[in-house]
Amino acid sequence: MTRTYTIDSIPGDGIGVDVTDVAMECVDAVAGLHGFSVSWRVRDWNSDLYVKTGRMMPVDGIEQLSSGDGIYLGAVGTPDVPDDVTLWGLLIPIRREFDQYINLRPMKLLPGVKGAMPGIEDLDIVVVRENVEGEYSQIGGRFGAGTDAEFAVQESVFTKAGVRRAARYAAEVAAGRGGTLVSATKSNGIIHTMPFWDEVVARTVAEFPGVTVDKVLIDALAARLVMKPTSVRTIVASNLFGDILSDLVAGVAGSIGIAPSANLNPERRYPSMFEPVHGSAPDIAGKGIANPVGALWAAAMMLYHLGEEAAARSLTSAFESTLAEGIATPDLGGSATTLEFAKEVRSRLR
Amino acid sequence: MTRTYTIDSIPGDGIGVDVTDVAMECVDAVAGLHGFSVSWRVRDWNSDLYVKTGRMMPVDGIEQLSSGDGIYLGAVGTPDVPDDVTLWGLLIPIRREFDQYINLRPMKLLPGVKGAMPGIEDLDIVVVRENVEGEYSQIGGRFGAGTDAEFAVQESVFTKAGVRRAARYAAEVAAGRGGTLVSATKSNGIIHTMPFWDEVVARTVAEFPGVTVDKVLIDALAARLVMKPTSVRTIVASNLFGDILSDLVAGVAGSIGIAPSANLNPERRYPSMFEPVHGSAPDIAGKGIANPVGALWAAAMMLYHLGEEAAARSLTSAFESTLAEGIATPDLGGSATTLEFAKEVRSRLR
Ligand SMILES: CC(C)[C@H](C(=O)O)[C@@H](O)C(=O)O
Ligand SMILES: CC(C)[C@H](C(=O)O)[C@@H](O)C(=O)O
Repeated sequence: MTRTYTIDSIPGDGIGVDVTDVAMECVDAVAGLHGFSVSWRVRDWNSDLYVKTGRMMPVDGIEQLSSGDGIYLGAVGTPDVPDDVTLWGLLIPIRREFDQYINLRPMKLLPGVKGAMPGIEDLDIVVVRENVEGEYSQIGGRFGAGTDAEFAVQESVFTKAGVRRAARYAAEVAAGRGGTLVSATKSNGIIHTMPFWDEVVARTVAEFPGVTVDKVLIDALAARLVMKPTSVRTIVASNLFGDILSDLVAGVAGSIGIAPSANLNPERRYPSMFEPVHGSAPDIAGKGIANPVGALWAAAMMLYHLGEEAAARSLTSAFESTLAEGIATPDLGGSATTLEFAKEVRSRLR
Repeated sequence: MTRTYTIDSIPGDGIGVDVTDVAMECVDAVAGLHGFSVSWRVRDWNSDLYVKTGRMMPVDGIEQLSSGDGIYLGAVGTPDVPDDVTLWGLLIPIRREFDQYINLRPMKLLPGVKGAMPGIEDLDIVVVRENVEGEYSQIGGRFGAGTDAEFAVQESVFTKAGVRRAARYAAEVAAGRGGTLVSATKSNGIIHTMPFWDEVVARTVAEFPGVTVDKVLIDALAARLVMKPTSVRTIVASNLFGDILSDLVAGVAGSIGIAPSANLNPERRYPSMFEPVHGSAPDIAGKGIANPVGALWAAAMMLYHLGEEAAARSLTSAFESTLAEGIATPDLGGSATTLEFAKEVRSRLR
């Protein structure tokens, strides 16, 4: 009997297609070596579909995905379609309908990748981002469009339950990583939601013996991640702060192209979604030079989430050892194509 | 006849006192050399006063300040008083009552200061931060305190007039600095206020021939400032984004202790306020080792704003050449005390 997982793959736009193509092959290869298989349902849900049909996914798209074991996303976005259309049409509904309230973004200095600053070989940071509320609420809009008095508002909404479950997940992550949880905040005065964030985080983490909260203002934290990046191991952050900090950390580690992102429904009531952090990069799409490391790392996180930990480790070692050999795509200073890089990865799978 | 400026000095708490003490002496010295004088009204408005009287400043504090030519602030904050009390009691009302809608935060790699990464000798960034609206609105609060259904909200408010005047100021700054204005945004989907920000910035900057807008998502911008910091010269940002980015840029330049901040009412209808970016640092307060560079740089910005440009240049060269000699406080790796550093600065004034 073989274990089979049904994964919905949404390559999306631009280099999303380039990197998921090769990453799915690597996943199939490592699955074969570890006694399971992946049944891919490849979806053409992207900006082209939008241009043709006025929708980024079919009306029953969410329902279609709900029967699968996970979602593997490349990237969405094209110059032809406004960003808010591509996002509200696909990425955001998936995150929300499937209550993927944790966005897990690990980063470390990969072998062969030059970090932004010297002396950060030990860089190893996990950002736990709250993924469905906070600054990204649906509430907001414009008043007086076109008039001189025009203004726009956006409501940030932080619920006790929402902050609690993010803090709980983050505390568990921190417990396995030295016990210090850095909580990104801005509670020194102005933003009404942030003292509430602090309180709920503090109260939740107090239930985890051995885990302590290091509350750091977002501005100071941004500076600290540049000046002393190895002093931070685990971060819990709101939706917007987590978005900013995880890109910042990827920059410190030398590249956005390597960064993975897991949108998790930790209770597994719904499928989780795995994606590289990078965008669709229309300028290099189809040229065969996109860096597949972010997509491969995201795929490894997916295998881990499915319970295939040995396969996840094998895939991770394979791209790490490829990079360690100095084989890399042009964005990392190498000369390998996407295909060449992926071939090297496949040859290293155990 | 001597020109005399009346400046309200609010040393505040902790090292705010240490650095303004010496900086005021330097200002007096450079003023003497340039034929003007400063009449300081030193205010004891700080956390001690709050503990004694329940107020950070007198009831008519704003009125008292309004008769002066400028405000020079050290830092406020102490472990004994909640941050929101110290801030809403002093810093924020001053920014708002005096409509200091621009927060100008220049940063460059100072001589002798080690930046966070190699190859950034040319670093030279000015952050123009909108300073009175945006994410820092008074609107917000909690629902259902203590219950399981508790939540907190914060309204971001962006007005056409508010974004316009910030963009206009920033466009003027960018015009003198190569013509590219990086606008920090997050308009790719979720946050209702940001497409509005983009529109108003684009329309405003279009009135400035030779200035172009480079719209960059805040997450990507954070990464870019780490990976290619010298590719950015002038940034316009909302209140919160500007807060985060300016600290980040100071981190890239190697130190928060050197960063200055000018809270400007460009029309000069009200006094403007000048302050170092760093906080009150209670741990090193009174030890005589605080870095006065942020306070000195802020003082130079104040002199410039008063129209005393030659004196501003002299003060700037004086602290730059002191640093260039390798004289620096411990936070920068030196062994000078605050007083020793300031004495060197005074001896270099021309
Ligand atoms: C595209 C955008 C809405 C998204 C986000 O901010 O969540 C992206 O930046 C990310 O981090 O996945
Ligand atoms: C103290 C705080 C409210 C303030 C701000 O965010 O404006 C500070 O960080 C600053 O940048 O001046």
